[in-house]
Amino acid sequence: MMISGSGPGGCINSAASRSDATVMHGPILGWDVGGANIKAALIRGPRGDPHIVELPFALWREPKRLPAMLVEVANRLGTAPVMAVTMTAELADCFAAKREGVAFVLDAFRTAFGGAAVWVFGTDGRFRNAERARDQPVHVAAANWLAAAMLVARTFPDSLFIDVGSTTTDIIPILGGSVAACGRTDMERLSTGELVYTGALRTPVAAIVHAVRFGGRTCRVAAEQFAIAADVHLWLRHIDETEYTCDTPDGRGRSRREAAARLARMVCADLEMAGDDDITAIAAEVARKQVQQIGAAIRQVRRRIARTPDVAVVAGIGNVLAKAAAGRIGVPARDPPAEAGGGRAVPAVAVARLLMETAESDLLRR
Amino acid sequence: MMISGSGPGGCINSAASRSDATVMHGPILGWDVGGANIKAALIRGPRGDPHIVELPFALWREPKRLPAMLVEVANRLGTAPVMAVTMTAELADCFAAKREGVAFVLDAFRTAFGGAAVWVFGTDGRFRNAERARDQPVHVAAANWLAAAMLVARTFPDSLFIDVGSTTTDIIPILGGSVAACGRTDMERLSTGELVYTGALRTPVAAIVHAVRFGGRTCRVAAEQFAIAADVHLWLRHIDETEYTCDTPDGRGRSRREAAARLARMVCADLEMAGDDDITAIAAEVARKQVQQIGAAIRQVRRRIARTPDVAVVAGIGNVLAKAAAGRIGVPARDPPAEAGGGRAVPAVAVARLLMETAESDLLRR
Repeated sequence: MMISGSGPGGCINSAASRSDATVMHGPILGWDVGGANIKAALIRGPRGDPHIVELPFALWREPKRLPAMLVEVANRLGTAPVMAVTMTAELADCFAAKREGVAFVLDAFRTAFGGAAVWVFGTDGRFRNAERARDQPVHVAAANWLAAAMLVARTFPDSLFIDVGSTTTDIIPILGGSVAACGRTDMERLSTGELVYTGALRTPVAAIVHAVRFGGRTCRVAAEQFAIAADVHLWLRHIDETEYTCDTPDGRGRSRREAAARLARMVCADLEMAGDDDITAIAAEVARKQVQQIGAAIRQVRRRIARTPDVAVVAGIGNVLAKAAAGRIGVPARDPPAEAGGGRAVPAVAVARLLMETAESDLLRR
Repeated sequence: MMISGSGPGGCINSAASRSDATVMHGPILGWDVGGANIKAALIRGPRGDPHIVELPFALWREPKRLPAMLVEVANRLGTAPVMAVTMTAELADCFAAKREGVAFVLDAFRTAFGGAAVWVFGTDGRFRNAERARDQPVHVAAANWLAAAMLVARTFPDSLFIDVGSTTTDIIPILGGSVAACGRTDMERLSTGELVYTGALRTPVAAIVHAVRFGGRTCRVAAEQFAIAADVHLWLRHIDETEYTCDTPDGRGRSRREAAARLARMVCADLEMAGDDDITAIAAEVARKQVQQIGAAIRQVRRRIARTPDVAVVAGIGNVLAKAAAGRIGVPARDPPAEAGGGRAVPAVAVARLLMETAESDLLRR
């Protein structure tokens, strides 16, 4: 059951409480369909551990393959008659507008799974059927953060949920067991600090820094897709090659040497001109700037809720950045609760769990 | 004839004076081979007007097509037995290092034009044959700005040459008829302010601004290749559709409506959420930030030469940005000299003219 009400500062609170009158008895497949990654979680019952699969998929490049990708993911997990869906893929620029993107994703589920029941999570914290979701694209676009935060809120009722993914960072305040986010759409959330477009893999270095300092000089950087955050964090050993799951910008490999060459190119150099110390200085500065970006957004969120949360619950492939940013404001970091399934795909687990616990009367049909 | 000597602040001055003892009697094809554009100028004699062709070509995507592209450009202009070449294409990330890139471009000239004499311009202001150029990749990489500035210096002996291209901006001080640049390699020039990686077409909006203000809110932007500078300047009517010569980020068209949709996506919105006024506010802020970036670099260059130049010679598809930045420091803007051929391909014209006037004794052979 979901309840909504006015929270502090005119923001909307969403609290989840477990209902006894649930209609779903599992298994349920929870989906977080992004523009660059598909994440899914299979939950067999209310107390079962989730099984999770992540599949990098550059949707904007070959949107028509989406149904096949969904089937591939489901085949790895085991099918289910009920799907709980959240998405951010509708923002991909293969779609002219969100309405087109939402419809495309829902069509892909129909193509992939035929008669399965598809329930789509919305930014009001409720599930609607696919038909209704298609008519309300702004409500179901990019609601994944809310599902994740509602799940975290059960274990950490006064916290800041910080999820640093491959591409973006969510910073969601949780107060008294309720999600106290102020923004609903991505555009609003980019304004409130609850969404920061910085991540541990896909973010272009040129979108993080305008200049870097190394070898005694300050050097502007090339505004080109020469290197991405994954190169930075691979070089700094925050991630290993198997975690570098997105494409490399130059189509070359994922070794530290190849990442270094990409980072050198950011200052129009190559590895004949730049040494390891230079690469380390460049990478460290980019990572530091990401922590600053996240830190600035945390401070913006904290100013609005007018209190310092007890703990920061840090999740995602870039949780090292979240930890560092939380540490700067003296808030201790915690791992996500066990029921969230490890922290790399919290929204996919969350929509499955939330749907499983949703009362029939709270499902929005036509 | 080229002369080099130590200039103010330990920088190197390059002055060009016309020599009577030239060996080249034209026609000469001058080439500026970039990673995203090929520009060529045909000069039939010392006093003839240049004929210019520009061809957008995403080298990094299909490097093997380079020889065919060179032939296509030459066919449009008319062939010549002598080629004057400058390049920035070696930085493209299809090449592991500049050495590989320089060799690849020179191989492409051999494949395309067989027995033609190829002379490559270097950052020392001199031409060397292809064999020598291949051995000195750092000397011949990205020397196009120097050729252009040497040509401009003849007409504007005390000036600032500001060339805002599709991707980058060169800011080159000219003192007493000499090029008084301090940086030689792109890396050095990014440090001195003589190279700014901002341009009127290809620069990603996410590399220009981290946030924009519109509709009463300040909104972070998406760190994605959703929109580029060409969308900004098309919307602001600084360029028209025919001047939007690079690919669009989403593969859609070049209408103002389609550009607006791309700009809306930068704040995770679409045209159902953002109106024309919002788009104008976003575009204007991005353009303003580009002028600021260029202005900051101009101030850095001016501080070093410790004087305000008489005029700013503004060139390139983004000359409106150069003019605005020069205006801010009260320096009047001038068009490039007539012999530079209109201002859109000054380096290609310049290498052709400079080679035509080069004495036999100044050509660097093996």
